[in-house]
Amino acid sequence: MLWFDGGLTEGPVPFDLADRGLTLGDGVFDTALARHGRIVFEAAHVARLAAATATLGFPVAPERIGEAMRGLADAAGRAHPLAAIRTTVTRGSGPRGLSPPAEPRPVLWASAAPVGTALAFTPLTLHPTEIRRNETSPAATLKTLGYLDAVLAAGAARAAGFDEALFRNTRGHVACAGTGNLFAVIDATLVTPPLADGVLPGILRAEILSVRAPRLGLRVAERSFGVDALLRAEAVFVTNSLRGLAPVTAIGETAYASPAHPVVKALAADLHGAFAA
Amino acid sequence: MLWFDGGLTEGPVPFDLADRGLTLGDGVFDTALARHGRIVFEAAHVARLAAATATLGFPVAPERIGEAMRGLADAAGRAHPLAAIRTTVTRGSGPRGLSPPAEPRPVLWASAAPVGTALAFTPLTLHPTEIRRNETSPAATLKTLGYLDAVLAAGAARAAGFDEALFRNTRGHVACAGTGNLFAVIDATLVTPPLADGVLPGILRAEILSVRAPRLGLRVAERSFGVDALLRAEAVFVTNSLRGLAPVTAIGETAYASPAHPVVKALAADLHGAFAA
Repeated sequence: MLWFDGGLTEGPVPFDLADRGLTLGDGVFDTALARHGRIVFEAAHVARLAAATATLGFPVAPERIGEAMRGLADAAGRAHPLAAIRTTVTRGSGPRGLSPPAEPRPVLWASAAPVGTALAFTPLTLHPTEIRRNETSPAATLKTLGYLDAVLAAGAARAAGFDEALFRNTRGHVACAGTGNLFAVIDATLVTPPLADGVLPGILRAEILSVRAPRLGLRVAERSFGVDALLRAEAVFVTNSLRGLAPVTAIGETAYASPAHPVVKALAADLHGAFAA
Repeated sequence: MLWFDGGLTEGPVPFDLADRGLTLGDGVFDTALARHGRIVFEAAHVARLAAATATLGFPVAPERIGEAMRGLADAAGRAHPLAAIRTTVTRGSGPRGLSPPAEPRPVLWASAAPVGTALAFTPLTLHPTEIRRNETSPAATLKTLGYLDAVLAAGAARAAGFDEALFRNTRGHVACAGTGNLFAVIDATLVTPPLADGVLPGILRAEILSVRAPRLGLRVAERSFGVDALLRAEAVFVTNSLRGLAPVTAIGETAYASPAHPVVKALAADLHGAFAA
C-alpha cells in the first residue's frame, strides 16, 4: 500500500528514472510506527523529515509530510494493529551530473508494511563492523537513501550469527547500530554518542534524552565513548522507532545482562504503552 | 533516451518504488563516453560494472550489460557525436528492512545524454572538502548509487568559485576528485592513490597506469600521499571517462601550471584520439 501524489494507491506509479533519489541517493526518509492507525511520536517524525529536506535544499512543508504519514497510517491501521510507515522524499529529477536543478521539484511518497507484535523490546546481539560511520559527512546525521554500508554490515553480522552491526566512527568512537541509536549504562550514567559522532537524530533517542530519562530520575548524558568503555558497560540497548528499546545481550564475544538491568527495565516499562499492539 | 528491459524506449517505464536501489542505494552504475555510437574502452566499462554487481551479490552477466551499453550508444550516436551513457544496475525489489531477498532480481537500465565537444581535456580547479572519503567502506571502491557526499561537496566547491571538490580519506591521504581520479607529478614520478585509499577503479586511471604511462616511458606509481605532497606537486590532473584528462590549475589557493607540464601534455596528446568528436 502506497501514498503517492496526494492519495492512496496500490501502485504501480509513474516514476522518472532520472530522479536523483535513484541516480545519486539524493533524498531522505523516515520510518515510523503506526499503532492502530496513528503514527507514534508523529510530530517528531514529521519535523525531522521536513528539517532534513530543508538542510539538503529541497524543503518540503511539514503539512505535506504529515498528510502522507497520517493518510497511509490510517489506511494501514484498518488491516494491521502495528505497521511500519516509511516516508521518502527525493530532490526529484535532474539532468546528468551532480549539479542539482536550480528549482528542485521534490518527490514524496510513503509505503506501509505490517510489523510483528513481537518486534518491540526484543533483545538483540551486535557484531562490530570494520566499516566506519563517516562523521565528517553531513549525511551522517540525516537519514539519507545511501544505506549500503548498513546493508553490507548487516549481512556480515547475520553471517557471523548476530542480529545487527555495531558501528564505530572514523575516530574510533562508538557510534550506533546499523538500524538504531545506541545507549549504554557506564559508571551509573546512561550515555549515548552525540550527533557529532555521526549518528542519526533518532526520534526515540531524543524522547529518552529529553523526556523519559529525566522523568524517571536517571542520570543521562550525550558524550563520546570508545569500545573499551562499551565493553565494561553495565547494560547496552538500541533504540529505533519500530524496535522501541531493544536490550543488547552480546557485542561480539562480550555478554551483557541488559534485559535485567534496572535502567533498562524502567525505560522499557515507561515506553511500553507507546508500542503495544 | 533509455535502454530498459532489453530494448530502447523514450519512457516512462514501470519502476517499483520498493526497488532497493531507490530505497537503500543498493546498486551500482557506470558512466561511459559514446563516440560516434561506440563506447570508448567498452570492455573495461562492461567488466567493471559486472564485477561490481558480483561483489555486491547480485551478479549480472557482462553480455547483458554490454548489450545495454552498445544498444543505447548506437542509437545515441545517430544524433550526437559524443554522448554520456550511464548504465545502472540495482539489486531489485525487496521487502521492508535491510535484508536482501534470497534470490535478487537485479534491474538494469541505461540512459544517454549529449556531451559537449569542449568537455574533455578542459582544465579545472579543485576545492578541498572537509567531508572525508570513507576508505573503510567496501562501497568506496564501487561506483554505488550513494553519491550524496559528492553532491554536497560539489555544491560547496561551486559556491566557493571552484569546479570540483577534492577529497581526502579518513586517514588524511589525498583520495580523489568528486567525479574522477586524481594524479600528481611529485618528484618526477606520476603518482595516484591506491584503491585502498578509498578511490574508484577508474577506467582511465587503469588505462594510464597500465598502458599509456608505460608506453610513454613515464615513471608511474600507485601510492598514498598527503596534502603537503600534493601542494608541492609539479602538476595535477583529474581523469574520468567524460573529461578524459583534465589538468588542474588550482587547488584552493595554490596554483598549478599543469596544462603546460610535459607529462600532462604527453598523456593528453596520447589520449586525444579516444575523445575527439
